[in-house]
Amino acid sequence: MNHTFGSDNYSGVHPEIMEALIRANHGHATSYGADEYTAKAIEKFKQYFGRDIEVFFVYNGTGANVLGLSSMARPYHGIICSELAHIQVDESTATETFIGCRQITLPTTDGKIYPHEIEAKIQRLDDQHHPQAKVISISQPTEYGTVYSIEEIKRISAVAKRYDLYLHMDGARISNAAVGLNKSFKEFTRDAGVDVLSFGGTKNGMMFGEAIIFFRSELATDFKYIRKQGMQLHSKMRFIGAQFEAFLSSECWKRNAAHSNSMAKFLAAELRQIPQVQITQPVDANGVFVKIPAQIIPILQQEQFFYVWTEKVSEARLMCSFDTRKEDIENFARKLRQLLSDL
Amino acid sequence: MNHTFGSDNYSGVHPEIMEALIRANHGHATSYGADEYTAKAIEKFKQYFGRDIEVFFVYNGTGANVLGLSSMARPYHGIICSELAHIQVDESTATETFIGCRQITLPTTDGKIYPHEIEAKIQRLDDQHHPQAKVISISQPTEYGTVYSIEEIKRISAVAKRYDLYLHMDGARISNAAVGLNKSFKEFTRDAGVDVLSFGGTKNGMMFGEAIIFFRSELATDFKYIRKQGMQLHSKMRFIGAQFEAFLSSECWKRNAAHSNSMAKFLAAELRQIPQVQITQPVDANGVFVKIPAQIIPILQQEQFFYVWTEKVSEARLMCSFDTRKEDIENFARKLRQLLSDL
Amino acid sequence: MNHTFGSDNYSGVHPEIMEALIRANHGHATSYGADEYTAKAIEKFKQYFGRDIEVFFVYNGTGANVLGLSSMARPYHGIICSELAHIQVDESTATETFIGCRQITLPTTDGKIYPHEIEAKIQRLDDQHHPQAKVISISQPTEYGTVYSIEEIKRISAVAKRYDLYLHMDGARISNAAVGLNKSFKEFTRDAGVDVLSFGGTKNGMMFGEAIIFFRSELATDFKYIRKQGMQLHSKMRFIGAQFEAFLSSECWKRNAAHSNSMAKFLAAELRQIPQVQITQPVDANGVFVKIPAQIIPILQQEQFFYVWTEKVSEARLMCSFDTRKEDIENFARKLRQLLSDL
Amino acid sequence: MNHTFGSDNYSGVHPEIMEALIRANHGHATSYGADEYTAKAIEKFKQYFGRDIEVFFVYNGTGANVLGLSSMARPYHGIICSELAHIQVDESTATETFIGCRQITLPTTDGKIYPHEIEAKIQRLDDQHHPQAKVISISQPTEYGTVYSIEEIKRISAVAKRYDLYLHMDGARISNAAVGLNKSFKEFTRDAGVDVLSFGGTKNGMMFGEAIIFFRSELATDFKYIRKQGMQLHSKMRFIGAQFEAFLSSECWKRNAAHSNSMAKFLAAELRQIPQVQITQPVDANGVFVKIPAQIIPILQQEQFFYVWTEKVSEARLMCSFDTRKEDIENFARKLRQLLSDL
Repeated sequence: MNHTFGSDNYSGVHPEIMEALIRANHGHATSYGADEYTAKAIEKFKQYFGRDIEVFFVYNGTGANVLGLSSMARPYHGIICSELAHIQVDESTATETFIGCRQITLPTTDGKIYPHEIEAKIQRLDDQHHPQAKVISISQPTEYGTVYSIEEIKRISAVAKRYDLYLHMDGARISNAAVGLNKSFKEFTRDAGVDVLSFGGTKNGMMFGEAIIFFRSELATDFKYIRKQGMQLHSKMRFIGAQFEAFLSSECWKRNAAHSNSMAKFLAAELRQIPQVQITQPVDANGVFVKIPAQIIPILQQEQFFYVWTEKVSEARLMCSFDTRKEDIENFARKLRQLLSDL
Repeated sequence: MNHTFGSDNYSGVHPEIMEALIRANHGHATSYGADEYTAKAIEKFKQYFGRDIEVFFVYNGTGANVLGLSSMARPYHGIICSELAHIQVDESTATETFIGCRQITLPTTDGKIYPHEIEAKIQRLDDQHHPQAKVISISQPTEYGTVYSIEEIKRISAVAKRYDLYLHMDGARISNAAVGLNKSFKEFTRDAGVDVLSFGGTKNGMMFGEAIIFFRSELATDFKYIRKQGMQLHSKMRFIGAQFEAFLSSECWKRNAAHSNSMAKFLAAELRQIPQVQITQPVDANGVFVKIPAQIIPILQQEQFFYVWTEKVSEARLMCSFDTRKEDIENFARKLRQLLSDL
Repeated sequence: MNHTFGSDNYSGVHPEIMEALIRANHGHATSYGADEYTAKAIEKFKQYFGRDIEVFFVYNGTGANVLGLSSMARPYHGIICSELAHIQVDESTATETFIGCRQITLPTTDGKIYPHEIEAKIQRLDDQHHPQAKVISISQPTEYGTVYSIEEIKRISAVAKRYDLYLHMDGARISNAAVGLNKSFKEFTRDAGVDVLSFGGTKNGMMFGEAIIFFRSELATDFKYIRKQGMQLHSKMRFIGAQFEAFLSSECWKRNAAHSNSMAKFLAAELRQIPQVQITQPVDANGVFVKIPAQIIPILQQEQFFYVWTEKVSEARLMCSFDTRKEDIENFARKLRQLLSDL
Repeated sequence: MNHTFGSDNYSGVHPEIMEALIRANHGHATSYGADEYTAKAIEKFKQYFGRDIEVFFVYNGTGANVLGLSSMARPYHGIICSELAHIQVDESTATETFIGCRQITLPTTDGKIYPHEIEAKIQRLDDQHHPQAKVISISQPTEYGTVYSIEEIKRISAVAKRYDLYLHMDGARISNAAVGLNKSFKEFTRDAGVDVLSFGGTKNGMMFGEAIIFFRSELATDFKYIRKQGMQLHSKMRFIGAQFEAFLSSECWKRNAAHSNSMAKFLAAELRQIPQVQITQPVDANGVFVKIPAQIIPILQQEQFFYVWTEKVSEARLMCSFDTRKEDIENFARKLRQLLSDL
């Protein structure tokens, strides 16, 4: 298939990651995580986030989010998140089924949630009849491709602390946020008050595998049981460990994210020159959201696939990836211009 | 690490599977299963099992078992299985948590469960106070490395039909069973009355990925939602599809399983020549269970790791894999002999 | 405690119900529902709703709602309801925990939800990533004391049928709705397209016990197991049966509800004569919602307790009960006038 | 219906309890437990068990057991109990569904479980693949009518403490145990090491309502949410409170249990005089288990109903209640003798 703007998970595996998989494939290795590749990958995470963290590898983003949240929320709790949060709109009812708790959603126009809105949803504490808010979950970058500033995260964390809630971050595209902010992972997660982090790899060049990082070790005490029970413990774990080691070692993650972010900026720049389309969100990471006349969308999708994000306003989502090429964008812009002129 | 007898998941990825992963890694592919690799793999499964099946790929064996079972059991149901079944002893409480139902266990000496014992556990049907038996789950091969004959499975299926229960097969090592029986997959699954099959790949040379195969399409109607909600839907699905296609296409599965089974037979033959150890189970597949004097086990494990299966009788489990070499076995037998003579 | 306007569950047990309890208390009766009192109560329900229904008794409204909903929704489903629905705001996370599914809420100003709003929430059907809307749940009367017309319910049912959803009614105060509409129970439930009904007794003079009524018998097939598993099967069931029989036999339900509804109308009439307070909702049943100056509320609550419903607009909820007396209302109005004049 | 030996829940409500219900039925009372009757009942419990306990009222025994257990067990835990425990054989899969955990059962011939057997089931601690034993649950009296001595309970508690497990007691018939032991409630619960107690009332003369008593207050911190979410919070709570106050105040519980226990002893004495039947268990409380020739059981059941407990050995369970009369027993013995002589 052509290079598309469908999703960063339409792209394949970065060559350095594939090399790491091949290298890890010799001899025997203890299963379920007691292997040297997993140990080295955890060591890398400790170099980034500090030694006193707990790291667990799982298969995918839904697993990372739901299991991570289950370490903080009991069934009678509520998780406050954006109405567009991946856990709310794209992970079925995994949270409700696995944890048993409620998601409490906030409307959003930019994908972010803000302290005063969050505070307004922390209601009826101590009232036995009502779900008790216990976790705030934010996506970084958001599902709208926007990135919280460190200050914004700190202000959310302050609300969490004031009411004795936990702060979770869905970092499925965390590399793109780090590059977008030009900050270290640690600065906008742990140092900003995040308690549990879903650290994504698959959308930035890995084949499979995500990490859950605990910045409060007491939340991780029983987590190995939760991971197994949650069907997220891989037997041949070395193949997740090897990927993450390669991903983190030579800044593969940063090079990949820098590329996809810069491609998104280039795509946005191209689109801004076309007066019939409107970019709807800041381009902070690797996604561009743009209103395109509805009648040409199906033709354009055939050329280079992308998803319609908000059908009623004809808003499209264009995702760039580590393998997006300048020519893919130029070709897309050319085709778009042509279709618009044919209208 | 040396080649061990720890588990068939201590081994890595078969070269043909790795080649398939590399080949699949070019260009973009639609995520979540709408790609050509997944389509081809499903097509292969249809060639083996018949066209009117439903196939879903998941990450691991626990996912395959629990989600497959959840298509048949509601929370008030019971699942009858052996007390040694993987779902009972090695998958934490995944069944109870995800489905909410009860596992009803049968004692076993050979890993198998038998019709009259199963029937005795189908109790108090129609009694609202008691869990209602609804599924029989058997492992093929069993956790003791024994293989049900087609006739044995048909007799269990007859019990299932008599009481309106479903029959599930945990086929984590199904290739080894097929080779052991010298029968096609279809003959001892679908044709023998199995309703839902967990079809394993990882333990026989794949990197990750298992399949759930439905022989009754009505059980699969809503399964796509269950898989997503069960955190088992892979985004870059082409990398599971490509593995299974390679696994099934050139009989990679059969060559691998034939090798590991024959290595187990060779290992058993070597052990039978050593009077101080006793093989405890028929060697029908790729595992050998053997009583070894307790005092030498730790030293032997350092040489080539294996697990103690039943500590109180000093019974060890020796698993052979697609990459087990004759010299690994000869070396093991030599070391064992030497340690015994030193006693 | 004085007669209050706190809730219709602040009142006690109607004398006719208490008499029935005393009458039922002689000799032995088979437990768990196989007794003559339960049989007679079910017979009464059949006289009201038709013979081809299934009736189950449970302890309370939350039990009735959650277990009834669990007969229609699987874990990957969504239940559409008002943001003020009792299942959403006052039953903790019972739905999420017991069923595993999502509640999809609609904003409301009058407690009702409307067809076009409901339809807008039936999104992404057939999309494995998203909760699948499967049930619409309405409260009759609503939590705002308003009552759906038969026509309104039929229009909601039409939406349900169009998308293959079920329609559930939370009838915790269903007697008050029947009196308010001056219609039979059947006309605005079964005949209007309701599939499963929570039929309340406790708020209208019973001590404990609610009924779940299935208008589609196929939904009730396994319900006895769900009730037991849901911890809602009473052993000495005759004491629920006897209450319901008395409740339904001599139109005790209707006399009680007629009284509480008329008391609410009288209370509303009194309040309308006080210019400093504003009634905010139609008084269709036994509740009056009224804005009262915030500074006098605590003093008034000491006199005759009531709950503040919406704190930020100083809106109070005044519930009338089968035992509310004219003098309670006159006294309340007098005190209110006095406090207002003292401002 | 005649007085039977079916169950102690075939009997009705003790007159003193009914009087208390009638007395509680005047005026209004705050709902959901904030009423004076509930306060007084809790005060009574504190007089029996000590002031530093936490008491919660629920509807029934299943609710008490499952919710109490859920305060101690997380989904990846195991609960060790007898294979005949009520939670295992007569509460459907309520534990699995509501908590998500596993029940680990021990075979029993007398209804009891013993320290060395329990210890043997505490396996594979710290192994992520396996359910982690966390609670021991014993029934007092057992389902076989036998009563643990204080010493026996202390020995079980010692095992619990050694492995950091909790000890739960299902006291559905706890009054009969207290009378049987001639000890205070506190001596064989709290003082013997029980952590959480299901305290039963319904089987000893109440209409509905059971209590959960926490001897470790930290386990009760969030319990009010669990009770609501578990559908076990009664609105008109005064009617549970009033019953328990009457039950505990004038030693109603003791008089009732002393009567039913003595009736069981009288019944056993009568049966011992009949050589063709064999009493199978010690008569420690209010149940008598006896082998009766199978062919006469249906005729005898028509006279005075009872349940067959173990069909294959023709063992019947005869339960005495607070209202069992000497003549009921004499009549039963006479009929039994007559039927045996007709054989």
